[in-house]
Order: sequence, then structure tokens, then C-alpha cells
Amino acid sequence: MWTYKTSVHWIEGKTGVLRSEHKPDVPVGTPSEFGGPKEGYWSPEDLVAASVGSCIMTSALFFIDRAGIELQSYESSANAVMEKTPSGLAITGVTVEVAVTLKKPEQEAALREAMNQAEKSCPVSALLKCPVELSVAVK
Amino acid sequence: MWTYKTSVHWIEGKTGVLRSEHKPDVPVGTPSEFGGPKEGYWSPEDLVAASVGSCIMTSALFFIDRAGIELQSYESSANAVMEKTPSGLAITGVTVEVAVTLKKPEQEAALREAMNQAEKSCPVSALLKCPVELSVAVK
Repeated sequence: MWTYKTSVHWIEGKTGVLRSEHKPDVPVGTPSEFGGPKEGYWSPEDLVAASVGSCIMTSALFFIDRAGIELQSYESSANAVMEKTPSGLAITGVTVEVAVTLKKPEQEAALREAMNQAEKSCPVSALLKCPVELSVAVK
Repeated sequence: MWTYKTSVHWIEGKTGVLRSEHKPDVPVGTPSEFGGPKEGYWSPEDLVAASVGSCIMTSALFFIDRAGIELQSYESSANAVMEKTPSGLAITGVTVEVAVTLKKPEQEAALREAMNQAEKSCPVSALLKCPVELSVAVK
């Protein structure tokens, strides 16, 4: 069992700071469309998207490493959609688009298999009630 | 409908950087117990805890503001637990402990009501399959 410890401290208005030991502070705030600051602050919804995108990457890196695949680059976007629903605001989907460049083009099939395994084993995707859509482009 | 856009870029080893427009970059990595760096990087699991903790805070700030409650301080911890399960690693619970100091002690009942409303309306808590336990201390 592992515990991941964070804290959040209100600063003023709709803003605060996120902390976790030995990691850089992250400014957080209400999204601007709900009265938060215009720029400079991560919103909780941003952090949901970021947790999924980074979990797909770290899961992928495990399988990529195990398969001996050599990465040139790995870039991805992760977007979360929030909508008004009858029961209030709800995050209804997350899409993750990954673009990978390989040092050895012949490893594309192995890379796609590693990404499939990452998609299945990512604990953050598995935690969410909404759909998580992953697409992978290999260059 | 609102979209929250983030991206993650692999740097080297088990590390990368999270980006979102007009917000400071956040270093991310695999947790150290799974081969990631020892210090300095937010893990996906940290970001799950942080998204819940910050969502409870931003939701609370909405109701606190609406009720005319004057905060002296708002501090909270948010911890996520991950465990090995028959189907692999899973995040099995998040606990959020909030400590609030009020400028006017007579607003405690209103503050507790605002926290109840925040707990019910936080879109990140509602998105998770695992239990989210919230406790509130008022000083």
C-alpha cells in the first residue's frame, strides 16, 4: 500500500497553492469561467486531465522500457471536458492524444502493444467514471 | 461545455513535464517506488490527490463566498492510497482533511453547511470510483 500526500493552502480570493514534500509548489485556482483568475493557476479540472495524461505516460514508459523500445520523443495532450448536467457540473470525458517518435521504426508494433498495455493498466484512467479515449500516432 | 487542455512531454528516463497554457510547468514522473526519481517530481497519483483537494477547496470557496463567510485561513491535506489488487494497481481511496479558521466564530454553522455543499458538488470527487472521505475542523 502506498500513500500519496499533498496539501492545498488558500491564499486569497479563488486561489491557493498545492504542495507535496520535495516537489515544487503549484498555484491552483477556480477556473476563470467560474470566477477564478484569468491566468497562471492550475484548476482542479486541469489537474484531472494532467493526472490521466501523465499516468498514461508513466505506464507507457514502464512497458516501453520492458520491451526494449527506444524513444526519440513522447508528446501528448490530455483534455478534460466538463458539462452542465441535471445533477450539476460533471466531467464527462477525457481524451489523450499521444505522438511518439521512435529511434528504430521497426519497433512500431511493439510500441503499439506497449501503449495498449499502458491503457489497460493506468490506475488513474481506471479510477474515473467517465470514458478515457486514447489515440496514438507513431512517427 | 468547457475543455481543460493540458499536455505532457517526456524528458528522459521516467520523467517529463506537464504544461497548460499560461500556467507554470510542472515536473512529473513515475513514483519513486516504481522506478521514478526520488524527489522533485509530481506523480500521477499525487495529481489525483491534488485534484480532489483543490476541487473541494474551490467548491468550498464558492459556497463560502455566497454565504458571506469570512475566512482567516483554509488549509487541507489530500492523500490518495494505491494498493495491489487482483486486477492490478488501483487507487482505492482519497482522504481530505480541511482545517478552517474563521474571522467570526459565530459563522461556524454556516461554514459547515458550505463544506457540505462543496462535498456534494465537487465534480472531481463525483468522477472517482473510489470513496472520498472529507473531514472538517473549524478553529
